Amino acid sequence: MIFERIRSEGLAHNSYFIASDGHAAVIDPRRDCRVYADLARRYEASITHIFETHRNEDYVIGSVELAGLTGAAVHHGHGLTWRYGRTVHGGQLFDIGRLQLTALSTPGHTDESMSYLVADFATGPAQVMAFTGDTLFVGSVGRTDLYGPGEAPRLAAALYDSIFGNLLQLGDGVIICPAHGGGSVCGSHIAERELSTIGIERQQNPALNAGDEAEFVRQRLAERPERPPYFRQMEKLNLEGAPPLGRGEPALPPALTLAQFRAALDNGAVLIDTREPWGFGTHIKGAYSIWTSGLPEFAGWFLPYDRDIVLLLERAEDLLTAATNLARLGYDRVVGYLQGGIEDWYGAGLAIERLPVMSVHELKAKLDHGEDILVLDVREREEWDSGHVPAAQHLFLGHLQERLAEVPAGRPVATFCSIGRRSGLAGSILLRSGRRDVSNVLGSMTAWRAAGYPAVRD
Amino acid sequence: MIFERIRSEGLAHNSYFIASDGHAAVIDPRRDCRVYADLARRYEASITHIFETHRNEDYVIGSVELAGLTGAAVHHGHGLTWRYGRTVHGGQLFDIGRLQLTALSTPGHTDESMSYLVADFATGPAQVMAFTGDTLFVGSVGRTDLYGPGEAPRLAAALYDSIFGNLLQLGDGVIICPAHGGGSVCGSHIAERELSTIGIERQQNPALNAGDEAEFVRQRLAERPERPPYFRQMEKLNLEGAPPLGRGEPALPPALTLAQFRAALDNGAVLIDTREPWGFGTHIKGAYSIWTSGLPEFAGWFLPYDRDIVLLLERAEDLLTAATNLARLGYDRVVGYLQGGIEDWYGAGLAIERLPVMSVHELKAKLDHGEDILVLDVREREEWDSGHVPAAQHLFLGHLQERLAEVPAGRPVATFCSIGRRSGLAGSILLRSGRRDVSNVLGSMTAWRAAGYPAVRD
Amino acid sequence: MIFERIRSEGLAHNSYFIASDGHAAVIDPRRDCRVYADLARRYEASITHIFETHRNEDYVIGSVELAGLTGAAVHHGHGLTWRYGRTVHGGQLFDIGRLQLTALSTPGHTDESMSYLVADFATGPAQVMAFTGDTLFVGSVGRTDLYGPGEAPRLAAALYDSIFGNLLQLGDGVIICPAHGGGSVCGSHIAERELSTIGIERQQNPALNAGDEAEFVRQRLAERPERPPYFRQMEKLNLEGAPPLGRGEPALPPALTLAQFRAALDNGAVLIDTREPWGFGTHIKGAYSIWTSGLPEFAGWFLPYDRDIVLLLERAEDLLTAATNLARLGYDRVVGYLQGGIEDWYGAGLAIERLPVMSVHELKAKLDHGEDILVLDVREREEWDSGHVPAAQHLFLGHLQERLAEVPAGRPVATFCSIGRRSGLAGSILLRSGRRDVSNVLGSMTAWRAAGYPAVRD
Amino acid sequence: MIFERIRSEGLAHNSYFIASDGHAAVIDPRRDCRVYADLARRYEASITHIFETHRNEDYVIGSVELAGLTGAAVHHGHGLTWRYGRTVHGGQLFDIGRLQLTALSTPGHTDESMSYLVADFATGPAQVMAFTGDTLFVGSVGRTDLYGPGEAPRLAAALYDSIFGNLLQLGDGVIICPAHGGGSVCGSHIAERELSTIGIERQQNPALNAGDEAEFVRQRLAERPERPPYFRQMEKLNLEGAPPLGRGEPALPPALTLAQFRAALDNGAVLIDTREPWGFGTHIKGAYSIWTSGLPEFAGWFLPYDRDIVLLLERAEDLLTAATNLARLGYDRVVGYLQGGIEDWYGAGLAIERLPVMSVHELKAKLDHGEDILVLDVREREEWDSGHVPAAQHLFLGHLQERLAEVPAGRPVATFCSIGRRSGLAGSILLRSGRRDVSNVLGSMTAWRAAGYPAVRD
Repeated sequence: MIFERIRSEGLAHNSYFIASDGHAAVIDPRRDCRVYADLARRYEASITHIFETHRNEDYVIGSVELAGLTGAAVHHGHGLTWRYGRTVHGGQLFDIGRLQLTALSTPGHTDESMSYLVADFATGPAQVMAFTGDTLFVGSVGRTDLYGPGEAPRLAAALYDSIFGNLLQLGDGVIICPAHGGGSVCGSHIAERELSTIGIERQQNPALNAGDEAEFVRQRLAERPERPPYFRQMEKLNLEGAPPLGRGEPALPPALTLAQFRAALDNGAVLIDTREPWGFGTHIKGAYSIWTSGLPEFAGWFLPYDRDIVLLLERAEDLLTAATNLARLGYDRVVGYLQGGIEDWYGAGLAIERLPVMSVHELKAKLDHGEDILVLDVREREEWDSGHVPAAQHLFLGHLQERLAEVPAGRPVATFCSIGRRSGLAGSILLRSGRRDVSNVLGSMTAWRAAGYPAVRD
Repeated sequence: MIFERIRSEGLAHNSYFIASDGHAAVIDPRRDCRVYADLARRYEASITHIFETHRNEDYVIGSVELAGLTGAAVHHGHGLTWRYGRTVHGGQLFDIGRLQLTALSTPGHTDESMSYLVADFATGPAQVMAFTGDTLFVGSVGRTDLYGPGEAPRLAAALYDSIFGNLLQLGDGVIICPAHGGGSVCGSHIAERELSTIGIERQQNPALNAGDEAEFVRQRLAERPERPPYFRQMEKLNLEGAPPLGRGEPALPPALTLAQFRAALDNGAVLIDTREPWGFGTHIKGAYSIWTSGLPEFAGWFLPYDRDIVLLLERAEDLLTAATNLARLGYDRVVGYLQGGIEDWYGAGLAIERLPVMSVHELKAKLDHGEDILVLDVREREEWDSGHVPAAQHLFLGHLQERLAEVPAGRPVATFCSIGRRSGLAGSILLRSGRRDVSNVLGSMTAWRAAGYPAVRD
Repeated sequence: MIFERIRSEGLAHNSYFIASDGHAAVIDPRRDCRVYADLARRYEASITHIFETHRNEDYVIGSVELAGLTGAAVHHGHGLTWRYGRTVHGGQLFDIGRLQLTALSTPGHTDESMSYLVADFATGPAQVMAFTGDTLFVGSVGRTDLYGPGEAPRLAAALYDSIFGNLLQLGDGVIICPAHGGGSVCGSHIAERELSTIGIERQQNPALNAGDEAEFVRQRLAERPERPPYFRQMEKLNLEGAPPLGRGEPALPPALTLAQFRAALDNGAVLIDTREPWGFGTHIKGAYSIWTSGLPEFAGWFLPYDRDIVLLLERAEDLLTAATNLARLGYDRVVGYLQGGIEDWYGAGLAIERLPVMSVHELKAKLDHGEDILVLDVREREEWDSGHVPAAQHLFLGHLQERLAEVPAGRPVATFCSIGRRSGLAGSILLRSGRRDVSNVLGSMTAWRAAGYPAVRD
Repeated sequence: MIFERIRSEGLAHNSYFIASDGHAAVIDPRRDCRVYADLARRYEASITHIFETHRNEDYVIGSVELAGLTGAAVHHGHGLTWRYGRTVHGGQLFDIGRLQLTALSTPGHTDESMSYLVADFATGPAQVMAFTGDTLFVGSVGRTDLYGPGEAPRLAAALYDSIFGNLLQLGDGVIICPAHGGGSVCGSHIAERELSTIGIERQQNPALNAGDEAEFVRQRLAERPERPPYFRQMEKLNLEGAPPLGRGEPALPPALTLAQFRAALDNGAVLIDTREPWGFGTHIKGAYSIWTSGLPEFAGWFLPYDRDIVLLLERAEDLLTAATNLARLGYDRVVGYLQGGIEDWYGAGLAIERLPVMSVHELKAKLDHGEDILVLDVREREEWDSGHVPAAQHLFLGHLQERLAEVPAGRPVATFCSIGRRSGLAGSILLRSGRRDVSNVLGSMTAWRAAGYPAVRD
């Protein structure tokens, strides 16, 4: 059995390529799916099966694209009005060379969620591996809130059954291969470590050691994971099948001259400054500050699907990564990037806007001196709960754009997060809204703690 | 926890890079160790520890080279007069960021064999992983014959204790990370699948399901794995520390003009034709036919350490791979390759030698017609035992050079293996010894079986 | 001025990327035109102009493809019923940043042939460079036979005027940038050196030192360059605009299982064995032996446009190069390659065919002993004329397939060329036609001469 | 003839690889010389000759390193007490395959300066190319001030003779291949275009159209090119032979933890912030702001050879480029780079320093309002002379560190250059010296002109 985990950074998404005796399958392919075709060529195997563990809500699945490249058949769970692929049912078997996959219905995260068990007959009939999708993660379990609060208790109970009644019965030695790793929005506190087993999870997974079913359900309902607005678009695309990228990767958007770039902005294109946030101090007015590797996590909170997108890149060589990261969220209207980069903008003497930075020491001194400054902490609720700057205000980054009214007007604002990246993006959103007197606190909570300054909990 | 498996193809050797919070360790590094430094850079971690599971016999370990690149400390088991590194004892603990490694003495393959257990305190105190070296493989266990037949019973019993008394006690859920995968000479029948757990092995590993200790020992002693002569050189280098390659990779040997190449041959250099064996039909007299990816497995059977080596490459771009494959076995005297390749040799009208090929159908017809032809099957004993051409003679490839006298003179020889590669190498050895009337059977046993021709067992 | 020469190996085709101040132009782009877009990105320039020196006959021009990627306008000479692009006239000027291009009508190779002169106003108004297309080469001039013998005198006279009346008047210091380098079929004896000037050519180009116009014309008419049949297809595609590859490179054809591969053959697909010819000794029946880098030169002589093509590759990594080389000649029906390569064919025990090889020494001995053997020399006329094996028969490789009847039946044939490549292809053609008893002479004329054997001239 | 120009960006240095029939030579190799060995492998040629046009003063020549890799012999002009290589004299001939090189003594830039003429006997006996070193550039000629003002008249006269008496006599059609392109410090106003001929230069090179010898000499003496202090080190290394890098490229310096990095700084290491200057607004105190591609041009003005160097990188992948750029100037004491980059510094809450930026509009407004602000223009004299901000003060960047006293204390300083890069470096130097109230003008003269603000000339 050949086994390869393909990580999509930023999304913390894992897909899998497995092969045996010249046959191969892919589980939960991503949209930029050329990587699987390359693996198939390297391992001299033909991809014949594509399995989806569920209708994903956090990225565009690449099943249709990959099927187009390879002719493989797509399989997913039942109960949705899919516009592509075939429906499988629990207990259904699939042969991939000497591998045998068994479909296992594991609802809870969603109703149609499936897991796929693998027996490797090269070594024996035992189940050795389970692709658990968003049902069971390393150190966590899938969220159950996606159908809304009314459905959550039912889903949480179903998840309990799927995990305790099915997955944990497979035996301690079975290796689990979830669809997400640490940092995903699809589960809270997923571990950084990618390798685990039923046994390890049974022993150490906090969600599995909560007590009885009632307590398990109670904990699920107590979780309040964020739900970015782009999820709706993903659910639509992943039900209908996303439009093809072609060749399993996005076409490279063209370079725009300064004149073309300005014309695009004038025509309503959204600008993303994908440089590291440390260079955003003096930027093009109106830009979102979303560094390249932050696009998968943050673009979907703010960017509309019905407008063109233009990019300001640190280096032209970042173009493919930026375009791919956006394509993974279904943003296909990237119409170009500024040829010559920020230097050409500066050289033309065009309007710039500032987002000043502040050190934690400066912030501390201001607060100590009683200066009127609003520390706007945009971290997630849980990070905030684990300790924050006294007198700070919490407003999660993802909600900032739609809840700008909650940021009191007329006061200087110091945006704050864990290190200075998300606070930079928050600063860019405030500036876009017309706010002035906004600063970004460099190092933010990490530096605050390193300096030994006091943190409080609510 | 960051986890990366680094495969060395051909040797079927696995080394591992693990990291946490900016600290990293490498288990059983290979000699061309630049790969670990690159991983450290990618994951922003400093390699501080190098662990050897045992004194390896089948490749040159890269501990000294990697320590030179990184300043990391080398650790290995006790009982040998090591000329480098530090000795560890069972129970000793090592912190790598939030990982904790526990050394576990697991003698059996060798006396100083260690396993290293990993707890990932980011998720809890349980042992989640075990680097089992050559003690426990996926689907197999380490060989116990390396100290000779007299010591084998003692080692086999020790191995039993190490596995049953120690490793299996870790619990089913622990993931095992052995030093070798399928195809290694360090264990028989290691599985192709790289991922496994104590639970899966307990259930399916044939060696662990043999019965009681006596039976386990009996089976070990019944195994007759091959022991290539280069093992002695590896044992020496891995005790003393191998000479540095520099930069973690071998220097590229120079291109040789035809005149320089011929001079090297005249001065006694050994020639390896690293092209695919299918092009060896008309070759330079005296060459060994060892294709690039076959070097790790076969070079150590035949090549001396005290002579220069010259290469005939399919493509100049293969040079680094060929040189690296040889360096992994400690062959550091590669003095060059023929610039212009075989075409220049042909163009100069220099002496060529032939190794004709024969199809299985031609072979069958000759045998059916009673032609006098010796089918020399050079596969491993076990392959032979699973079925062979009637009236064939078995002589394992590795022994051919030193047991040439067993090949009856005066008869046409058709070399035979599973597909035609090893039989090509066998043919080259016969030709080097002065034999004529040698042919290589294309497709060999694979084709023989595909054709439905009869195979017999002794 | 930025200047980059892009070589297409095999075709010996040169295209050019020039840029200044953010603007760029491409002269005679090839069909796999992603390379120009990459250069534009590197040099931060927008490709706004594409210039064709003439309707090329030897490869598919990439103007339409590149225009599709970049939006650039295509320009070419007048007098043809182009289905794309714009017509330019002599004297027309184009500004590319600080560069100024002047179109110059230089008929002779074809009627619509243009040259483009470049002045670099960053340094002054002088013409510094001339893109001379197929009019003037380094060491040669364009062929004038493409319209047939009736038109050749007129074209040769026009070429004389274009060169002597126009190009040579530019002054010795002007650098010439022709559309082809050494090895092209578009001119005889083009030099290997790519850099030259009007002055050097005036001094040393044999065609320019012939004497008067009459002598120049006489020499042109005396040349008998070969005209591969695929030229007709090129002329059609280059008039109408070739179908798009998409993304400026061909899509990768899929891997075929042995069953799929055989089915394709059964359905009439043409098989090209793209391995080095030295491995063709034992091959799949019916294959053409055309090594990867030989495809641009030889595929167009033999392959039809109305049949599927399947490939046997040395390595799967050669796929893109092979597909690209075929796409450059307009072969877009490559439906796949054999996964597993020749080894899988051998392993299946399927039918193989032989093309034995012979050394020049063996050939010499046979001839000396009066054996009945036909030495079939498939080199170009001119190579033949410079000396050949006594009693050999000449039949140029390109004509072999259609003039098989000229190879006397019933005699053993030894195919012969300069080194053994073209003779291998010739051997494959003979075998395809049903001939048996064919051998390929390794080293051929190069080895024959190195051995000191006698060569004669007719 | 194979011909490849190898550009070393930043230094605007050209070296050349030429080959014919399996033999190759390199002219003026750079120190990171692996590139030539790779070319030799690609073109199947052995490098047998290395030619130096003169003892270079602006970079470390790679002759010794390349000779070590290849065994080639090094050749250079006479009159210096070289510690390596062989001395050649005018008229000496060298055969490289079918190429013939003729050494030509062309003193002027230095006394031992040589040019090398190339005849390509594949096409005829004419000289087709001249490697003109620092004698004749495209659009310029070599500087003659390196021996000091006393010797300059003699050198200028010698240069006149070398060019007019020798090079121009070669004929218009000869292609010139100088050692430098646009942007080099070895000649003023060298053109961006790399290709030229004797004819083009005779026509358009301003230095060759000045009038008579007296005027030529007068113009040379009137030039005041800068002479960075590192030239002395280059002259020493290039006379003695530089210490080997090994493998033709520098070893990669290690990653340093924050603690190691701070310790290095405490021990006196010099810090270079190699990020783009736009991120330098909030930086590590004491850093020089020299972006990666600016290292070759600027490091040699400021960095000592007797201290360790540490790097702050934008991305870890920039490490090799940064280390190579420094090695080209002989800086071999790069002891590491900060793992985790600036983000880790910020996160630790360590001391930061600011270099605020100012737009040209803000600067204009301040000046218009009579604010006391010193516009410190650090461009080259000639840029300054072509127009500058009224009331600005000129002090060339290269002299700033040693002439800090000329910057009046107590006044706010706005550093100014052509775009904002060099002014950022100037700002970093002022801050290092303890100056406060320093700003960098974004866009600088380019933006100032784009805005239509007035520029004056002295």
